[in-house]
Amino acid sequence: MHLPAYMERRRQIVDEALDGLLPPVASPPSDLHKAMRYSVLAPGKRLRPILALASAEAVGGDWNSVVPAACALECIHAFSLIHDDLPCMDDDEYRRGRPTNHTVFGEAIALLAGDALLALAFEMLAANAADMAPERVARAVTMVARASGTWGMVGGQVVDMQSQGQDTDADTLQYIHAHKTGALLTASSCIGALLVGASEERLADLRSFGQRIGLAFQITDDILDVVGDEDRIGKRPGSDVKHDKATYPKLYGLDESLRRARRESEEAVEALGRFGPEADPLRGLAKFVVERDL
Amino acid sequence: MHLPAYMERRRQIVDEALDGLLPPVASPPSDLHKAMRYSVLAPGKRLRPILALASAEAVGGDWNSVVPAACALECIHAFSLIHDDLPCMDDDEYRRGRPTNHTVFGEAIALLAGDALLALAFEMLAANAADMAPERVARAVTMVARASGTWGMVGGQVVDMQSQGQDTDADTLQYIHAHKTGALLTASSCIGALLVGASEERLADLRSFGQRIGLAFQITDDILDVVGDEDRIGKRPGSDVKHDKATYPKLYGLDESLRRARRESEEAVEALGRFGPEADPLRGLAKFVVERDL
Repeated sequence: MHLPAYMERRRQIVDEALDGLLPPVASPPSDLHKAMRYSVLAPGKRLRPILALASAEAVGGDWNSVVPAACALECIHAFSLIHDDLPCMDDDEYRRGRPTNHTVFGEAIALLAGDALLALAFEMLAANAADMAPERVARAVTMVARASGTWGMVGGQVVDMQSQGQDTDADTLQYIHAHKTGALLTASSCIGALLVGASEERLADLRSFGQRIGLAFQITDDILDVVGDEDRIGKRPGSDVKHDKATYPKLYGLDESLRRARRESEEAVEALGRFGPEADPLRGLAKFVVERDL
Repeated sequence: MHLPAYMERRRQIVDEALDGLLPPVASPPSDLHKAMRYSVLAPGKRLRPILALASAEAVGGDWNSVVPAACALECIHAFSLIHDDLPCMDDDEYRRGRPTNHTVFGEAIALLAGDALLALAFEMLAANAADMAPERVARAVTMVARASGTWGMVGGQVVDMQSQGQDTDADTLQYIHAHKTGALLTASSCIGALLVGASEERLADLRSFGQRIGLAFQITDDILDVVGDEDRIGKRPGSDVKHDKATYPKLYGLDESLRRARRESEEAVEALGRFGPEADPLRGLAKFVVERDL
């Protein structure tokens, strides 16, 4: 399979669906809806939704039916970026090569746009219920809620913030990475399969896959912050060093970090040993997360 | 029935359940969990959870089964208060007579505690699924998501903020009140009944009840901001005037505002015409929202 073409086709489907599911600018409050759209529809890879669609595909399910759930994951990702960039958090002016949400819309609207996107994500998830076994929908809501809150993204964000300027040990770094980015990527890797009715065994394999690509993704992010090109990563490299964040290169050095990212990616592929060729997109994505923009 | 005793019994049940459902301080990240608990467990009436339990009771259902959903509503309420009080929003130092969340824990933790509470609310809602028809759970998630985001609380908050210092017309004031506080109170008045399997007709009556007490509640809030006692309302009165907010007293004067609040409360009771004595707690609560602390 040709992964770039696959990702581009899926990205277009996700972007069209997001455009239809996000509140229109014509409805009040317009400024809020502009701000929500600005961040969600910003140019991006749509990795989380694509993983969700690919996980439905990997178990032989109809990936079309999980498009709204896939969109929910992108909304949660956008919510987290908007709040992370706020002055009381990382205070970043640029994101994906464009001014951050609060730089354009002001702090209050940015805060509320993030809040509204988190709520909207659960609306998108539950809206699936019409066509889908509702107990799966309830389980998907639990999965995404836990991946977003203190047991996932928000919890990782807190420890990340509190580790700035500290000597962070390997366990804490592992905690930050598994929670801050890993939890939502793991949920993305399972949710499509869950919603189309995969077996518990397959879901466990996909969870293992997701945890490994989550870690591979974040280590690669850390590496790109050191060696990446500003035009290609969409933000100024060196922001981790500026905030003195806990990162793999800081703890292990660049070479060892690169080696660990690749090993996680390989182990992610191995976790799919029981899957047939339907899982090739997931296998391709596991390689993609460590090779992007390097 | 004796409403104060009823409310006190329910409040204790809700507070015990919240204590068990909120993340423990012993689990990391401790500071986040302290901040979440500080705001959710702050002394308060627990009006939204009590409405949710009373709505299950009003249709003859087992209110015990909807306690986690009732707790979810209190988490969403607390999330909205934490974010509203932030410096980039109302910049308030006191809430319910205590220093606001960011005053105690700092802006970053307060922001993230709000985020985590919104996510946790959906976890609590979906966790109900084990004992409950899952299609009802999916519908409850949709209801709460819409009441919290741009079609509810957040949307109302944006228009409220943008109306500060403006000459606000009656339609805009109605929009603000119906969304900022009305949407979540309406959801609270329906969700218990929805989860125990009420008919569509009863749900429509409860929606109508909820919209009316929502408006009665917010008009009363506006009035208390003018005439209330600092010790009893838990914040300094006059904050609406300070922010030059759109309020009923500003648009209609105090007497007419009081008249309208009472009329909404009476109409809320009338909306329950088809309900038996099981709905007496709801009827009592409709009176309570306009009589509290006046």
